[in-house]
Formats: sequence, structure tokens, C-alpha cells
Amino acid sequence: MKKIIILAGNGLLPKLIINKCKLKKIFFYVLYFSNQQYLEKYPNALKVTFGNVLTELKKLRKKGFNQILMAGSISRPNFKDLKPDLNSIKLLPKFVKKIMEGGDNNLLKLVINELERFGFKILNLKTFLPEIFLGIGNQTKFKPSRSNLLDINKGMKILINNSKFDIGQSIIIQHGSVIGIEAAQGTDNLIKQSYPYLRGINQGVLIKMVKKKQDSRVDLPTIGLKTVKNLKKYSLRGVAYSANKTIILNKIDVINYCESNKIFLFGL
Amino acid sequence: MKKIIILAGNGLLPKLIINKCKLKKIFFYVLYFSNQQYLEKYPNALKVTFGNVLTELKKLRKKGFNQILMAGSISRPNFKDLKPDLNSIKLLPKFVKKIMEGGDNNLLKLVINELERFGFKILNLKTFLPEIFLGIGNQTKFKPSRSNLLDINKGMKILINNSKFDIGQSIIIQHGSVIGIEAAQGTDNLIKQSYPYLRGINQGVLIKMVKKKQDSRVDLPTIGLKTVKNLKKYSLRGVAYSANKTIILNKIDVINYCESNKIFLFGL
Repeated sequence: MKKIIILAGNGLLPKLIINKCKLKKIFFYVLYFSNQQYLEKYPNALKVTFGNVLTELKKLRKKGFNQILMAGSISRPNFKDLKPDLNSIKLLPKFVKKIMEGGDNNLLKLVINELERFGFKILNLKTFLPEIFLGIGNQTKFKPSRSNLLDINKGMKILINNSKFDIGQSIIIQHGSVIGIEAAQGTDNLIKQSYPYLRGINQGVLIKMVKKKQDSRVDLPTIGLKTVKNLKKYSLRGVAYSANKTIILNKIDVINYCESNKIFLFGL
Repeated sequence: MKKIIILAGNGLLPKLIINKCKLKKIFFYVLYFSNQQYLEKYPNALKVTFGNVLTELKKLRKKGFNQILMAGSISRPNFKDLKPDLNSIKLLPKFVKKIMEGGDNNLLKLVINELERFGFKILNLKTFLPEIFLGIGNQTKFKPSRSNLLDINKGMKILINNSKFDIGQSIIIQHGSVIGIEAAQGTDNLIKQSYPYLRGINQGVLIKMVKKKQDSRVDLPTIGLKTVKNLKKYSLRGVAYSANKTIILNKIDVINYCESNKIFLFGL
């Protein structure tokens, strides 16, 4: 029988994975980083920190858990919050070095390598939960205009070009003008912050892509109901996303909302 | 005697140029786009729009004005506000095409080419007002740390790399992490918006550079007292700028403020 450790971050994703495990009768244990109320009552869930997660993983390893599924975003830790225990203190110098070099991919690659070195297999979310992805091309009746397609094309080029620096997961463009580029603020804030600089309504687009070297086992870009509601609220016409590599949370609701509010969902 | 047309946009720069003209007894005429109260009472100043500026320029050309100094930023016009007169209507298709292609350099290059075609010489601000620029290296006693210098180096690479798309005049980095990238919001808003994502205080840096193909006769990046006050207020440690290509408004005040508030000014 499969025994999976779910390394849970923020957001809805850990819950979807737990539901799938239950459905498929897969035995799982959750190690979670942030405060997730629904996990507090779970018998097979434990809150961890960057300082003690390795120790907890090793304990589970001894109990036969040898597969890990990483789910949801985990905030970059503060140095002073690390408080490493005996197991993680050995890794700390490497970890700090990677943090200093910057870039999330860099850091995640280190984490994955270390976990694999401990004998864990890191599962691919795409294989485990294929139902939360969407494919290539238009997903609703409402389509991007010619101007939107030009903007999407430009945005793709810029994101791919930026991707070597491990930055810029999303960008907002309108009629060839770059309105906003995502850095640390996240997509929702990017949308809000860009609103005052749009000219005319419902003409700009959001382009959101995986980074070039992004490991698809972790940290995939996510689009949820909140994202598409923000597109509507802040007057954007739609979103172009990396097909089959973007998590679409509440997929059915997202598509329905887009259909009724004339927002396009366009897979690249 | 020199006769100069000052094409005035927003900000303090037009005023500095007017003062210099007075000091050097240069005969000038101001065409201004935005509401600038102090210009309203000038006998030799006229408010113009994108729709009638060419006609006014031609009139001045006939009166012997054959040099133009472009000063201060001019907002990208709304299509519906253009209202072109007979002279500008001929240029409109070209103009609209460039706007659709996006990127400010693109648009400015067109404007400069057209003005040169009409027989105007576009003056270089660096030659006319050398006292508003700063050179290479540290300009205050307070120096960037080793970590700051690494961040500055990373920021430079990203800005140069982005520059081919005519975007990203400035960026905020802290310990290798890209906190914010400027698009349409301007540097002051970038600083404000990035604040919540900084870790620890006075460690991040702002890097502000000219774009690769930027015409130094127009649209130079600007640092003023407001910029350095924002650096202090939002807990950044300093700013690295393109030496001799960045306008430092109120230079003495800027340097004094930096000296007394431990902010570095570093010319690249």
C-alpha cells in the first residue's frame, strides 16, 4: 500500500490532495507549515517548521513513508524563525547559501535534492491530480481579441526572457504596453496594483507562466476563483496560462465564472 | 542669439531649464502639456496638446526657434484626447502604429525623428544642464554593503536584459531576492508597493537604470528628494543609478538628505 507524506503549504491544494488520497484509499500523513485550521483536528497531520521538518520526515521514513507530494506555496523563511534542530542544523549552511543567492527555484532544487538523498521519491502533482490542470487553447466561448493575442505573445517573450533570473511568473499587458510585472507581491496584488495604469476597460491581459527551469513537482503557478474574480473586478479581459502546468483550483467554478463574466482562459 | 523651445512635461525639470535660460540669457519659449501653474503667467509659454503641438512648433519655427529641449515626463496620451489638428492628423497613423507596438522609446524615437524632419535640432539635456547629473561610484560617506553590491549587480543584469523590451527602468532587490520590478507604476509606487515584502530593515536596494537604447536627449530616469525620502520611509538602504545619465533633481538637497539619513547614492 502506498504511503505518502503531504508537505503542505498555504492554500486549497493540500485539501484537494487529502480528498484524493481518501478517495483512492492511499495512506497519507500531512506535515504542514502554516496555520491550517482544518488540519489541526486531523489525527495524521503535524505542524512543522523549517527547523524540525527533517527530523519529522526521518521519523515517517522509518514508518514506511517513502513518497512525498509537495502542495501549496511555502513562504520563504525568516532567518530568525529557523530554529534548527539537530537534523536540520547540518543542512543549514547550504540552505543559507541558497537563500543568499536568491530565487525560489534554486532553493526548491536544494530541498528536493536533499529529500531524494534521504531516499524519498518526490511525486509529480500532474500525475497525482490531473483533474486540476487545463490544456492548450481557449477554454471558454469568450475568446482573446487580436490585440490580446499580440499582448500574450509579447508577455510570453518577456516572461521566458526573465525566467533565467528565476523571476517574473506573471505580467499584465495592454495594447503592447507592459502595465505590471510580478515579483514578490503575487498575482492578486499585481492585478490590483496595475488597475490604475490601464487605459480603457476590459482590454488588458494577464499572462502567467511556469519559469523555464521550474520543477513541475513543486511550486506550480496557480489560478483560482479569486484570480478570475480579480480579473473581472480590475477590468482585465482574460488570462493566458502555461497549459497542463498551471494548477486551476476549483476548475469547474473557475470556468463557469469565466463563461458568465466574459473572461477568457487561454492555454499556452 | 540662441532661440530654444522647451517642450515641457511634468515635474520640476522645466523650471530648472527656464532658470538656466534666464541665467544664460537664452531666448526661450515653453510649450507645456500638463497643468503647470507657474507657467500660466509666463508671457512666453503656451499650453498645447498632442493634437496641436506640431502647429505651434511650426509657428515658432517661422519665428526663428530651431532648437528643442525636451524636459520632464509626458504621459502617454489617450486616443480620445488626441483631437488632432490639420498638421498632426498627417502624422496620426504613424503615431497610432507606434502606440500599438508599445514601449516608450519606440514612441519617442518617432517624435524625435519627425521633429528633426521639420528642421529642429534636439538638444541634449546633459550638455545644457550638466549640474543636475552625478558621476560613477559612491556619492556619500555611507556605502553599500557587500550584500548590497551583489544585489546591485544582479539588478543591473536583469534591467539590461529587460531593456530590449523597453521595460523595467528600476528594480528592488534584497539579499538576492527580486522584491519588485517597475512597469507602469513609476519608481515611487514601486518603492511603496515593495515595502511589505522586505525582510528586515535597511537592507534592500533600488537599482534604476537608463534603458539600453534610450535616447539621452529625452526621458532620462530621474531621482529627486521624494525618491530618497521614500527610500528612507520604506526602509531601503540606497539607490544605484546610471551615472551621468540620471537626472538628480535638487542635487544638493538629495545628497544632504542621504548624508544625514544614511542612504547611499551609487553611480553605475
